[in-house]
Amino acid sequence: MSLRLGAIVDALGGELHGAHPDAEVARIAPLESAGEDALSFLSNPRYQAQLADSRAACVIVAPALREAALARGACIVAPDPYVYFARVTQLWARAHGQGPARGIHPSAVVHEEAQVHPTAWVGPLCVVERGAVIGAHTQLKSRVTVGERCVLGERCIVHPGVVIGADGFGFAHERGEWIKIEQLGAVRIGDDVEIGANTCIDRGALDDTVIEDGVKLDNLIQIAHNVHIGRHTAMAGCSAVAGSTRIGAHCTIAGAASIVGHLQLADNVHISTNTVVTHSISRPGQYTGVFPMDENAQWEKNAATLRQLHRLRERIRALEQKTQGG
Amino acid sequence: MSLRLGAIVDALGGELHGAHPDAEVARIAPLESAGEDALSFLSNPRYQAQLADSRAACVIVAPALREAALARGACIVAPDPYVYFARVTQLWARAHGQGPARGIHPSAVVHEEAQVHPTAWVGPLCVVERGAVIGAHTQLKSRVTVGERCVLGERCIVHPGVVIGADGFGFAHERGEWIKIEQLGAVRIGDDVEIGANTCIDRGALDDTVIEDGVKLDNLIQIAHNVHIGRHTAMAGCSAVAGSTRIGAHCTIAGAASIVGHLQLADNVHISTNTVVTHSISRPGQYTGVFPMDENAQWEKNAATLRQLHRLRERIRALEQKTQGG
Amino acid sequence: MSLRLGAIVDALGGELHGAHPDAEVARIAPLESAGEDALSFLSNPRYQAQLADSRAACVIVAPALREAALARGACIVAPDPYVYFARVTQLWARAHGQGPARGIHPSAVVHEEAQVHPTAWVGPLCVVERGAVIGAHTQLKSRVTVGERCVLGERCIVHPGVVIGADGFGFAHERGEWIKIEQLGAVRIGDDVEIGANTCIDRGALDDTVIEDGVKLDNLIQIAHNVHIGRHTAMAGCSAVAGSTRIGAHCTIAGAASIVGHLQLADNVHISTNTVVTHSISRPGQYTGVFPMDENAQWEKNAATLRQLHRLRERIRALEQKTQGG
Repeated sequence: MSLRLGAIVDALGGELHGAHPDAEVARIAPLESAGEDALSFLSNPRYQAQLADSRAACVIVAPALREAALARGACIVAPDPYVYFARVTQLWARAHGQGPARGIHPSAVVHEEAQVHPTAWVGPLCVVERGAVIGAHTQLKSRVTVGERCVLGERCIVHPGVVIGADGFGFAHERGEWIKIEQLGAVRIGDDVEIGANTCIDRGALDDTVIEDGVKLDNLIQIAHNVHIGRHTAMAGCSAVAGSTRIGAHCTIAGAASIVGHLQLADNVHISTNTVVTHSISRPGQYTGVFPMDENAQWEKNAATLRQLHRLRERIRALEQKTQGG
Repeated sequence: MSLRLGAIVDALGGELHGAHPDAEVARIAPLESAGEDALSFLSNPRYQAQLADSRAACVIVAPALREAALARGACIVAPDPYVYFARVTQLWARAHGQGPARGIHPSAVVHEEAQVHPTAWVGPLCVVERGAVIGAHTQLKSRVTVGERCVLGERCIVHPGVVIGADGFGFAHERGEWIKIEQLGAVRIGDDVEIGANTCIDRGALDDTVIEDGVKLDNLIQIAHNVHIGRHTAMAGCSAVAGSTRIGAHCTIAGAASIVGHLQLADNVHISTNTVVTHSISRPGQYTGVFPMDENAQWEKNAATLRQLHRLRERIRALEQKTQGG
Repeated sequence: MSLRLGAIVDALGGELHGAHPDAEVARIAPLESAGEDALSFLSNPRYQAQLADSRAACVIVAPALREAALARGACIVAPDPYVYFARVTQLWARAHGQGPARGIHPSAVVHEEAQVHPTAWVGPLCVVERGAVIGAHTQLKSRVTVGERCVLGERCIVHPGVVIGADGFGFAHERGEWIKIEQLGAVRIGDDVEIGANTCIDRGALDDTVIEDGVKLDNLIQIAHNVHIGRHTAMAGCSAVAGSTRIGAHCTIAGAASIVGHLQLADNVHISTNTVVTHSISRPGQYTGVFPMDENAQWEKNAATLRQLHRLRERIRALEQKTQGG
């Protein structure tokens, strides 16, 4: 596996300096571990010190670092080296046969009333139920379930084990027992959505669960019924959104964060890892709520005190009154 | 898709007022978004103000709201409108061909020594292993695994990706290595249990893991070996129960809550979202332990102080002694 | 199902006292529930009181408890009764036909360029992609996906629903949209690794994700791209490790704990349940960060105060200055 440097700049733009276009790289690697056959990149100016020491055959750098890079060896100059690197990985994958497949694997179970676009791929052991729609160039990798009437847009990537359109968790309570509310809605997923392994997106109760264009979901995420996730929002692994919550566009939800039901999150809201969102958020910004980790013995003391925190506050108030009066 | 109002009251009881029984509804919708072709419901008296404004063709209401509803238009009066609504969704699903299937899909892999009731449904790409038992009217939707000797009762609904009867996580420790304890028990699941997508219920080590009648489990839940969950308990998505814990009947466990191993929870215990249950609970009630979310800068200050909380308490004590002595 | 006591000590060593080697046990059971046909074990000296009351046919005990055990009835004396018990469960499983299978189930989809060792087992409805390697005696139970070029060592056990080698979650950000970074690495898994149901291990971005020998992973775990987990580390259910984090050998990560990305954890680090690890840990030990659960009303008061904790600290400081000056 290798790629000509000239083929890279021909495809992606950028300026190649200090190397012949016919020079080849055999891999892509981080600066610190790159060998003499590797293309690397410097996206964060903080790591500029690593540049001089790198053995990489060629480094993608921003215009401001052109001279520093050339002092070391070959470089490709591009406005945003990280985005350029991302596009090189795409070029690499296509050049080495990891491009998208198309068609329906013979082991998949696709209902005759489902619509699968001829350019889409339904991989091994997938299930596509009645009335489901799989848009152009969308790929169901393997062992994916798309339930009845659920719709995926174009160029989506759905990883193994994903379940789209299982019933939302809805019950009425009657004399101590749960009466099932049949989930009559579906799931609607836009274009360019990626969904990680074993993630679940439930169908709506009456209306649909909606995932807008460009949303990226990592693995093992739970999206409950009637959730709405805005364009280009990204959610990391093991996060969860409870029923009927509406998340804005361009949000980021870090790993294992939870958002309770029936909330509204504005655009550009960023939730930190393991934070539990219990009320709506109308202002963009970073929000956090995590118990700080400590050595266990320290934690035990602090946690015990935490359980009396309200009383501590009252003792402070009493002290304040006493010293005021004294 | 439509349903006659007369067919609804014929099937479910309740009194139809202000509309001819032959009038039809084309959908079921929440009060605020219902159009003129929709049946809606008012279950929470707090939302009574929405009633007058709703365009719904017909609204399910409690007896106390009959007059208010009639002033607006047609209504069905029923003692518990939310339960009635739940039953209407069931009627709707049956009327529109979303009723339970029966039989074994040809792509499923069912061991010849498994017992599948003739009225049960084993959906596409399921695995049912040796000695497993699937009770009457139980539905394995698709891509479900039921392991050796595991038993499901009647009328259960098991969503895609569920794994029943994987090995519990049991090892002995010997000179820094883990020696596997073979998990010789199984899983026993009662009647009317629903299990959400990609949820896992492990087999017991020596005895069985037990899920009693009427339990409802949402998606991505982990039930470890030898857990026992009492009748009609409901657990929301991403919650987890560690080994050998016993949860009572009629409990609710909110999303992403965790219950550590070897505990006992009484009946009617309610655990809040993301709460970690670290000791047994003998009294019914609501239990909570969640770090409150804040803007990140605020959280940082408070979290830093929290790590010194025990020392703060000692400083308060010192102040109290000083002002006492003063 | 039964086993001769003599066959047990012949296979596993230990001394049988107080029973004829031809005596049989029909099950293995905990001390408190063991009937007269059961073999039991006493691994924790704290439970010695249960020994006298147990009805078990035979009890595995440590040498120090030989006399106490013999006063009650038959026993097997072994240096570590819990490890001995673990090996008995293995003997039991083999004797009763639960031993490992070998071959490829006809419903599995195995790429012609994958390498499956003749002693390995690829169970029903598994997917093994191009270039994947499955080592000797390794078992993929059912509905497991092993992605392109991913490698599993020998004697691994992989439970249903596991996804090895889905794409890591990597994107560059450009004008509000996410540009996919193709994940060009793979997953390398050592020998004697066990992976629980529906757990996900993502492929690396450029280098590989690595799971070393003897690691044990429970269910529903998320291992992100480029993570490295050291030998004989065990992780309990629903825990998660974010990208590029390196965990040492002989660590334990309790249930639902999260470790953020780009950290280093030393050997012999133990993380408590639901703890969020937000910085690297260089010293062995137990680390914890969990909000203590309380009755909801108590929690509400304490949580409200927690949001003002930094100001409380300032009030204490003010009081200290006042009383100092007084």
